[in-house]
Amino acid sequence: MQSESDRLRREGKRIAVVPTMGALHRGHTSLIQLARKHADVVVTTIFVNPTQFGPTEDLARYPRDLDRDSTLAQAAGTNILFTPSASEMYPEGFKTFVSVEEITSVLEGEIRPTHFRGVTTVVAKLFNVVKPHVGVFGQKDIQQVHVIRRMTQDLDFGIELVVGPTVREVDGLALSSRNAYLTPEERSRATALYRSLRGVADLVQAGERSVGTLRDRAEGILHASHPTRVDYVAFLDSGTFRPRESIAAPGILVALAVRYGTTRLIDNEFITI
Amino acid sequence: MQSESDRLRREGKRIAVVPTMGALHRGHTSLIQLARKHADVVVTTIFVNPTQFGPTEDLARYPRDLDRDSTLAQAAGTNILFTPSASEMYPEGFKTFVSVEEITSVLEGEIRPTHFRGVTTVVAKLFNVVKPHVGVFGQKDIQQVHVIRRMTQDLDFGIELVVGPTVREVDGLALSSRNAYLTPEERSRATALYRSLRGVADLVQAGERSVGTLRDRAEGILHASHPTRVDYVAFLDSGTFRPRESIAAPGILVALAVRYGTTRLIDNEFITI
Repeated sequence: MQSESDRLRREGKRIAVVPTMGALHRGHTSLIQLARKHADVVVTTIFVNPTQFGPTEDLARYPRDLDRDSTLAQAAGTNILFTPSASEMYPEGFKTFVSVEEITSVLEGEIRPTHFRGVTTVVAKLFNVVKPHVGVFGQKDIQQVHVIRRMTQDLDFGIELVVGPTVREVDGLALSSRNAYLTPEERSRATALYRSLRGVADLVQAGERSVGTLRDRAEGILHASHPTRVDYVAFLDSGTFRPRESIAAPGILVALAVRYGTTRLIDNEFITI
Repeated sequence: MQSESDRLRREGKRIAVVPTMGALHRGHTSLIQLARKHADVVVTTIFVNPTQFGPTEDLARYPRDLDRDSTLAQAAGTNILFTPSASEMYPEGFKTFVSVEEITSVLEGEIRPTHFRGVTTVVAKLFNVVKPHVGVFGQKDIQQVHVIRRMTQDLDFGIELVVGPTVREVDGLALSSRNAYLTPEERSRATALYRSLRGVADLVQAGERSVGTLRDRAEGILHASHPTRVDYVAFLDSGTFRPRESIAAPGILVALAVRYGTTRLIDNEFITI
C-alpha cells in the first residue's frame, strides 16, 4: 500500500482515504462517493481496530463480512481496498500510541476511556500507510471528527479532512453497524434519538434559547422510549467542543448517547438558530 | 517545508532529515555528512524542543546561536535548514502527543519522565513536515534511538533510520552541547565516563563475563572522579534495551549518566566480546 501510494503521488494523483471498520452501510458508501469528489484515487480501509474497543465492549461480536463489504465498497467507487490484519497492524512488541488530551476525556471518552487513543493511533498509522491528501469521516461520530482534526493539525499531517453528513433510515435512525444488534422492539424505541434532536430543533425554531429547557425536552423524549440508560445529552460549541450554557448564532451542537439493552447508540445534529 | 518536500519527492529525490536542537558540534556535522551518503537532499532541523525538557531542566539556558549553526550546517552539506519557532510547532490549543510505552520508563525516562514523549512528538511532527526517506540520529543518545526506532516502526512511517557513531574529544569525552556548561575542573573530571567504558571493555577483553564485576569497575572509575551523582550504570541487550545479567556474543551495551555540578552527561558504548 505504501509503495503504491508513493507511486500514485509521484504521478501527481490525489488520494483520499475512507477509514472504516467494515460492516458497510449507506453511511459508509456515501463517504466513499464523497471521497471521489475530492480525489483521483479512493482508498477504503477495512479494519476492526482492537485498540479502540474497551475490555467489556463488542470487539468479538462486531459484524465482519469482507466479501459483502468489498462488493459495496467497489460499487461506491473505491479504487483500492486496504484490509490489513490485526497482527500486521499491531505486531508483537507494539508500544506506540498517539493521544489527544482534554477533548478525549469527556462524553464518549468518559464512558470509553481508551477508545480515542485507539482511534488516533490507528488513524495515524493509516495516514502514514495510505499517504492521502484527504481523509473522509462521518458526522455521526462527531467527537471522533474533532479528535482526528486536532491530531491531524497538531502532528502536521498536512491532510485535508472532509466530513460527510449522517445518513438516516426513513424514520430518522442514524445508520450504524451496531443497529444490527437491536431487537425489533428496541429498534422501534431507538427512533427516540432522532426525535429528541428534532424536538430540540423545533423549540429552538420557536425561539427557545435556554439550554436547561432544551435539555428537558430532549431527555423527556428519550426517557419516554424506556432506554436502558441515557449516557449523555450534551449541548456543545461546535468549534471548541466545550459545553455551552446558552445558545447563540450560528447555533449549537447537540450530541446524544443512549443504550437499549446491550446496544449503545450515538447521534448528533448541529441546530442552527 | 511540506510543499518543498512534496515537490522533491515528485522529482524522485531522496530526502534525509537530521533533527537537532542547534548548538551544533562535530557530532552533528558528522551526522549531516553521513546523511549526504544516504540521500540527495539533506534537511537539517534546528529546534530547541520545549516538550522534551522537564520543568527544572535547562530549556532557558540551552545554548542558541542560529548564525553560527547555519554556517556549520551548510558547510557540512545541509541543503535545507528548517528552523521553526516554538509557536509554529506548538500553537495555542496543541493537545496531541506520541508516546512509546515501557522502554521510555527506564534510565533516561525514569529520571526525565516526560522527556521521551516530547522527543517522539516532535520527531513525528518533523517526519510529517520534512517527509524524509531517511532519518539520521546519533548513537550518543542510544535510548532515544531505540525509542524513535520503535515509534517509526509502530506508526508505519516507512522511514529508514541511520545511526551515526559518537564523536569524541581527544581525551574521550563524548561531544555534547551540554559540555559547554562544565567548569574547567568539571570538564577534566568528566573524562571518567569514557574511561569507565574503556575500563569495562578492557575487562571484557581479558575474559571477564560477570556484569557485577564489570559494574564495580565502571562505578569505581566514575566515583573516583567525584561526580555530584551517578544516575545509572546500565548493562543492556542492544536489541531489546532490557537489562542483562551476563554477557554473551556479540557483546553488551553499556550506558552511563553522571552529573558534575548542575551538568548531566550521558555516554554509551557497545562492547563486543
